[in-house]
Amino acid sequence: MTELVLPEDTNAKGSIFGGRVLSLIDKCAAIAAMRHARTDVVTISMDSVVFLNKVQLGNVLQLNARLNAAFGSSMEVEVTVRSEEPHSGKRTLTTTALVTMVAVDAEGRSLRVPALELLDDGDRERAAQAAARRKERLASRMKR
Amino acid sequence: MTELVLPEDTNAKGSIFGGRVLSLIDKCAAIAAMRHARTDVVTISMDSVVFLNKVQLGNVLQLNARLNAAFGSSMEVEVTVRSEEPHSGKRTLTTTALVTMVAVDAEGRSLRVPALELLDDGDRERAAQAAARRKERLASRMKR
Amino acid sequence: MTELVLPEDTNAKGSIFGGRVLSLIDKCAAIAAMRHARTDVVTISMDSVVFLNKVQLGNVLQLNARLNAAFGSSMEVEVTVRSEEPHSGKRTLTTTALVTMVAVDAEGRSLRVPALELLDDGDRERAAQAAARRKERLASRMKR
Amino acid sequence: MTELVLPEDTNAKGSIFGGRVLSLIDKCAAIAAMRHARTDVVTISMDSVVFLNKVQLGNVLQLNARLNAAFGSSMEVEVTVRSEEPHSGKRTLTTTALVTMVAVDAEGRSLRVPALELLDDGDRERAAQAAARRKERLASRMKR
Amino acid sequence: MTELVLPEDTNAKGSIFGGRVLSLIDKCAAIAAMRHARTDVVTISMDSVVFLNKVQLGNVLQLNARLNAAFGSSMEVEVTVRSEEPHSGKRTLTTTALVTMVAVDAEGRSLRVPALELLDDGDRERAAQAAARRKERLASRMKR
Amino acid sequence: MTELVLPEDTNAKGSIFGGRVLSLIDKCAAIAAMRHARTDVVTISMDSVVFLNKVQLGNVLQLNARLNAAFGSSMEVEVTVRSEEPHSGKRTLTTTALVTMVAVDAEGRSLRVPALELLDDGDRERAAQAAARRKERLASRMKR
Repeated sequence: MTELVLPEDTNAKGSIFGGRVLSLIDKCAAIAAMRHARTDVVTISMDSVVFLNKVQLGNVLQLNARLNAAFGSSMEVEVTVRSEEPHSGKRTLTTTALVTMVAVDAEGRSLRVPALELLDDGDRERAAQAAARRKERLASRMKR
Repeated sequence: MTELVLPEDTNAKGSIFGGRVLSLIDKCAAIAAMRHARTDVVTISMDSVVFLNKVQLGNVLQLNARLNAAFGSSMEVEVTVRSEEPHSGKRTLTTTALVTMVAVDAEGRSLRVPALELLDDGDRERAAQAAARRKERLASRMKR
Repeated sequence: MTELVLPEDTNAKGSIFGGRVLSLIDKCAAIAAMRHARTDVVTISMDSVVFLNKVQLGNVLQLNARLNAAFGSSMEVEVTVRSEEPHSGKRTLTTTALVTMVAVDAEGRSLRVPALELLDDGDRERAAQAAARRKERLASRMKR
Repeated sequence: MTELVLPEDTNAKGSIFGGRVLSLIDKCAAIAAMRHARTDVVTISMDSVVFLNKVQLGNVLQLNARLNAAFGSSMEVEVTVRSEEPHSGKRTLTTTALVTMVAVDAEGRSLRVPALELLDDGDRERAAQAAARRKERLASRMKR
Repeated sequence: MTELVLPEDTNAKGSIFGGRVLSLIDKCAAIAAMRHARTDVVTISMDSVVFLNKVQLGNVLQLNARLNAAFGSSMEVEVTVRSEEPHSGKRTLTTTALVTMVAVDAEGRSLRVPALELLDDGDRERAAQAAARRKERLASRMKR
Repeated sequence: MTELVLPEDTNAKGSIFGGRVLSLIDKCAAIAAMRHARTDVVTISMDSVVFLNKVQLGNVLQLNARLNAAFGSSMEVEVTVRSEEPHSGKRTLTTTALVTMVAVDAEGRSLRVPALELLDDGDRERAAQAAARRKERLASRMKR
């Protein structure tokens, strides 16, 4: 997903809102999850997000989503956001985010999603880390 | 901050995007931080956010922000989001979020912010918890 | 209702459009009327509005709505708009507006709304003034 | 000025927001005033507006602006809004509004505008009525 | 159709996006076609468009649509776009476009449209030219 | 470039506006041209565009841009638009477009762009076809 940062995306000082980036991350993760589940999806959670660099008016934002794991009806999607200064071509990492999406039917009931094919060791490691994070998330929600 | 959920805020199924809520949280936190710092602010991070309930087209969203703590140039803002079904008046908690904002000058350099007045035990406890979370955030960024 | 004035709200010179403020007033009045009537509402009229001060890009707009009176199916809502310069915290009155809303069912037919509880002399005076204005409005529509 | 009513202009029930119409009236009046004054303009006031008919998603809105009078630096612009059901071609009057605009320079200081050419009795009558309304507006602001 | 070019319509350098103009052309052509056909319409094609002049923030865009011809269920609409610098009143031609629209029913099936009344030689010439262009368009689609 | 079709992109019948697609094509072509030229760019023209399929609310739009040729300060960019029904994964071609962009400096003067590296026969053929189309475009503008 590629976006050009326009005046409508920026604050009074010409840099993008954090909230605008979060909104694009959510859209990018939703598309990736829908493509895996072949159903509608809803956002369940977003893990903590740290903004590493300021994004300026006129920059190009590049968002890439990758499914790390699928568990029953939920999916962990990792979104990497880079901003590109178009005159120099210089790219800097803006942030990465982990978004959990759930597949739902038209009435909003959760639906099982296909298992994720793990093709190599990198895939298997990411899925294992996602499973560990999921356990932590569920534990931390218990405590609330 | 109060918002009416309109068609432009919703997906093809009539419920609000997670990303739209995240965007409103960021705006609400920015206003609270600007009011404390009396400077411009930028979003540094948002702790993990869990969506507890679906928000529908036509609902009223109520966002409330509270400053938990101020540390040097950064501030932790807690935003609570409730959605209200306007016909019944029923309110449900949508999510809470912890947003870290930094005060900046016109060139984007960080600026010290006034200390937060802690008026009672509740204030002091929230500030202490915010300090603990801040320590965790810094430690976790180190590890990356 | 709180709003941050963004580039998308402003004209080519960096100040907000009168029409943008009118649009926020209408939304704010609609939320207040829906909360009283617990039904959908439509805007019937807005009394004359005078803009007392210019609102700039980066200002915070604060809108407050109060129900002055309920008559059968219609309600008079008073909306006060203040703008706040976030660096100084200085607030100036932008405008006040009187909006008449009618409660409607799903087919658009008007519905009776609950009477407004008048708790003190201030409430009673505002309701009496609203009733006088209503009489004037109906008389002036007759003349057209 | 012609507008097609799109989903982004409507509430949860498929009819246009009063505030959206007010916003279009302001834009239409601003264009008419800029064309007369050949300067930037700001909105000073809008006289009371009554919505006579509901405007639906898919309707075409037709706004027409006419300058009634020019006084020093201010202009009274009359905007008529009609909605057209595109399948039948049936047009209904939505509302008329009287907007007062002031010509300003780049620093926001008011500027004199050219006198309005009054070509026939209709023009002269409208200008006389506008002058009477202006007197009333100034008197009513005094009383506040 | 008249539009004021606002910050939300412009790129980082303060001039309007080509895409924004194309979007307005499509809306303007759709309204003209709906008014002739008295049905819903869909855009089938747009002939090549050349941007002759840059449109700046704060300019007024004036779009005029004219139906050149109606063939069965399709209509050729010619849209002329002019931009006006509001301080000088100077108008320059931005572009002209030829848009083909088809009348459709609620299920998207094409519907015959009324013949276009050709009142004078100008009308007849435009219709003849439109018929020639249509033949070319159909031939060129064959070749793809 | 990937986009999810939202209510704000659609007409009263739930299908996307032709103009919205044209606007995305322009943005996608601009990003590709900026990345080649490493300067700002303006849209000069778009060759005729034919919409082959209707795009529905909830579909995913996939836009891909490829530079066909660079001539002095201008570039021909080819944009292919596909829509994907997310439940079935079925993709259909929506349209292809040829957009001519010119590299400009901050004052809007045209700038030479780097030659396009032609790596294989496919690249060379596309560049030759683009050169032929450019000749036709220039000839057709002469005739106007």
